[in-house]
Amino acid sequence: MTTTDNAAKARISASELADVDRAHIIHPYLSATTTERVVMAKGQGSTLWDVDGREYLDATGGLWLAQVGHGRAELAEAAATQMRQLEYFTSFWEFSNNRAIELADRLAGLAPDNLNHVYFTSGGSEGIEAALKMARHHHYRRGDTDRTWILARHRAYHGVAYGGGTATGFPLYHDGFGPMLPDVAHLTPPWPYRTDLFGDEDCTDVCIRELENTIAEIGADNIAAMIGEPIMGVAGMVVPPDDYWPRVQEVLHRHGILLILDEVVTAYGRVGQWFAADHFGVRPDIIVTAKGITSGYLPLGAVLVDDHIAETLGQQGFPMGYTYNGHPTSCAVAQANLDIIDREHLLSRATEIGTYLTEKIATELKGIPVVGEVRGVGMMLGIELVSDTATRTPLPNPGAVADAVRREHGVIVRDSAQGLVLSPALTLGHNEADRIAAALRRVLERTDASGTVRD
Amino acid sequence: MTTTDNAAKARISASELADVDRAHIIHPYLSATTTERVVMAKGQGSTLWDVDGREYLDATGGLWLAQVGHGRAELAEAAATQMRQLEYFTSFWEFSNNRAIELADRLAGLAPDNLNHVYFTSGGSEGIEAALKMARHHHYRRGDTDRTWILARHRAYHGVAYGGGTATGFPLYHDGFGPMLPDVAHLTPPWPYRTDLFGDEDCTDVCIRELENTIAEIGADNIAAMIGEPIMGVAGMVVPPDDYWPRVQEVLHRHGILLILDEVVTAYGRVGQWFAADHFGVRPDIIVTAKGITSGYLPLGAVLVDDHIAETLGQQGFPMGYTYNGHPTSCAVAQANLDIIDREHLLSRATEIGTYLTEKIATELKGIPVVGEVRGVGMMLGIELVSDTATRTPLPNPGAVADAVRREHGVIVRDSAQGLVLSPALTLGHNEADRIAAALRRVLERTDASGTVRD
Repeated sequence: MTTTDNAAKARISASELADVDRAHIIHPYLSATTTERVVMAKGQGSTLWDVDGREYLDATGGLWLAQVGHGRAELAEAAATQMRQLEYFTSFWEFSNNRAIELADRLAGLAPDNLNHVYFTSGGSEGIEAALKMARHHHYRRGDTDRTWILARHRAYHGVAYGGGTATGFPLYHDGFGPMLPDVAHLTPPWPYRTDLFGDEDCTDVCIRELENTIAEIGADNIAAMIGEPIMGVAGMVVPPDDYWPRVQEVLHRHGILLILDEVVTAYGRVGQWFAADHFGVRPDIIVTAKGITSGYLPLGAVLVDDHIAETLGQQGFPMGYTYNGHPTSCAVAQANLDIIDREHLLSRATEIGTYLTEKIATELKGIPVVGEVRGVGMMLGIELVSDTATRTPLPNPGAVADAVRREHGVIVRDSAQGLVLSPALTLGHNEADRIAAALRRVLERTDASGTVRD
Repeated sequence: MTTTDNAAKARISASELADVDRAHIIHPYLSATTTERVVMAKGQGSTLWDVDGREYLDATGGLWLAQVGHGRAELAEAAATQMRQLEYFTSFWEFSNNRAIELADRLAGLAPDNLNHVYFTSGGSEGIEAALKMARHHHYRRGDTDRTWILARHRAYHGVAYGGGTATGFPLYHDGFGPMLPDVAHLTPPWPYRTDLFGDEDCTDVCIRELENTIAEIGADNIAAMIGEPIMGVAGMVVPPDDYWPRVQEVLHRHGILLILDEVVTAYGRVGQWFAADHFGVRPDIIVTAKGITSGYLPLGAVLVDDHIAETLGQQGFPMGYTYNGHPTSCAVAQANLDIIDREHLLSRATEIGTYLTEKIATELKGIPVVGEVRGVGMMLGIELVSDTATRTPLPNPGAVADAVRREHGVIVRDSAQGLVLSPALTLGHNEADRIAAALRRVLERTDASGTVRD
């Protein structure tokens, strides 16, 4: 193909975009039988517009990351200013840059206690790979070369690279991709609503007993770390009992097993604190973050690491690095994003508007037969959908509900394994919250026990 | 920590930056015993300046990616313009955006033959994980569920996530991180200079025989794909004989094994063509790209996929996606970057200035005892350093040479496993090429067989 052809092909009329998309893009999780395309072109706050000018209310905050909302001109300025100075240079070896250093300093200040060290990535999946490798490497360097096992949970989501993808606890992410990484075990998720898992017993009691038994079975001296999302996202914004994480931490600490918190979704204000570790009162050894660090304006992730891990990693240098490690432009945008979170008090705002939204939805959905539970912390909300509230049988195909909410009301929510999840910008307005709740009611009150939305 | 504290901590004086870096950043491959920091603050073309105002000539193009050079104001404008419109929304499921579609269309046009489908990532490591999973999933969906093995090469580099990290062929990337992904085998790299590997035999003959034997041993019906860098980067810009890739392709095709080319370094002009596949005249099933697609201005990667793979992936939807998939801002910057490559004819420029640089270096280094070979394709250059040109024994610690070139002459080159590698911007000037060659000569003529640079 010649240069001229390329230039001519580079811009496409709005009416042709969907066709070109179908011809050339592999979208995650999209089968060829789905021909619909929603081609977004503009965003402002929690409002999005597609190329045909249709308006949407973004109740997912992109992929759970748009803390400050769309269309912030000052983040565009921060990016352009930095790109004109130094768009990028490597941060491998002794090379560094002022923007990465400033951001690392700030993150070390925000992070719990002794998590004073930052390892940069371009996103959550990269961060999980790094954290798993750090955990194994830490033990290896200390001579505990058998400590290779990773404990995770069923229904966990830790990204899609091979390490995190193995720790992820859904068959969908393993089938046809295997064999997956060895030495990974999955435990029962702390999911109080799932009475089928716990019966009459206390949810945390069951989880802790299983954890102790699993450690005994594998052998504590063979286990590197346990990894978990403080609140499980893809599973459906599953909030554990308050005593779960403190008790897990106590068991792990007693056995010399590291705790990795996957805070890719929860960090930087979504739960009303900088980190969910603060919300649950635990002190992990490693926290993996991404998403909210830039509100998604540019790809960036940061793995926050405790002093004692950083010390062993530094013995010979930690032998892995991603190209865009410490990317100056991404770091500059993260600073400007954190400035907004600070200036507009979005942590307390997350709690205030999150509580309002949760209560509003609970009120609107009260008595609807397919609604099992409405729950949330800050701006992470989950709605359990069921065929029967007594048996708590999951409603088939919650995706049909999410589609109807978008198509009929222009409100974008996401389906989870067995329900709906919402994670709007922390700047969401009260009237927008009202519209989300109303749209959900209008669709769910027409949804029958088979998961069909009646006309 | 309070809001006010954070704001106060956010900016740091130039003199304190190195201290703060040492306190808070985990740099890849940097041991705690190295206290030096080079804190970059500004770039223009192939020139960089650190926070103290010291000037450098960037002969690595960042991490082998700065095709158009540093400080391009139009890329800053492209980013800012897009961020003001729609900085980001997800491209999962049926969601898309105009910038991702336009870029996919252009890449499909540039890519060889039937590689008409694009899967977006934020970088090379993410892309390799996707490619490995695509290969296994493709066979799985077609009922060839035993085709799980991946063939790679010793001394290969395929990123640092667990899948690609396993395919990577250096012990450094496995030790202390294992157990690694199962079902990965490593073959001999096509490295003509390494007579220890091939003796008097033809390099390609040896490699092909080993490939055939390995396939027979594992069983063709158990093998999903072979992955390789067309020119091996981290190993030292190792250029295979011209017949290597065509003959490999013929063997793989005969056995129903997919060919994945890792073109993270080679794509988008570095070798004087859009893809090294074109240079070697092969047609892979999957090409993984990143780096040069934006010249590093923003994180982005694109996996280019053949029609027949895309078709099986589309049967039920490919069940993996990274958050920043199809990031509108990164895609907009990629377009502007490809525009520059087109407009300034940087493909032919890579061949012209690359040939000039290679010849200049060969001339300057002629007769220096520790220089074994100078080689390259386009703007990918490798210099073999040896203790003895007769035995071709690798010189110990080539990092000391790279350090001296930077400290004494302000020229940034990189050491590889057993030599030096160079990959400047495709816009490098002839006088800059002269300076690089002269700096190398001045250091290498003082380097003894033990790898020590004499004063």
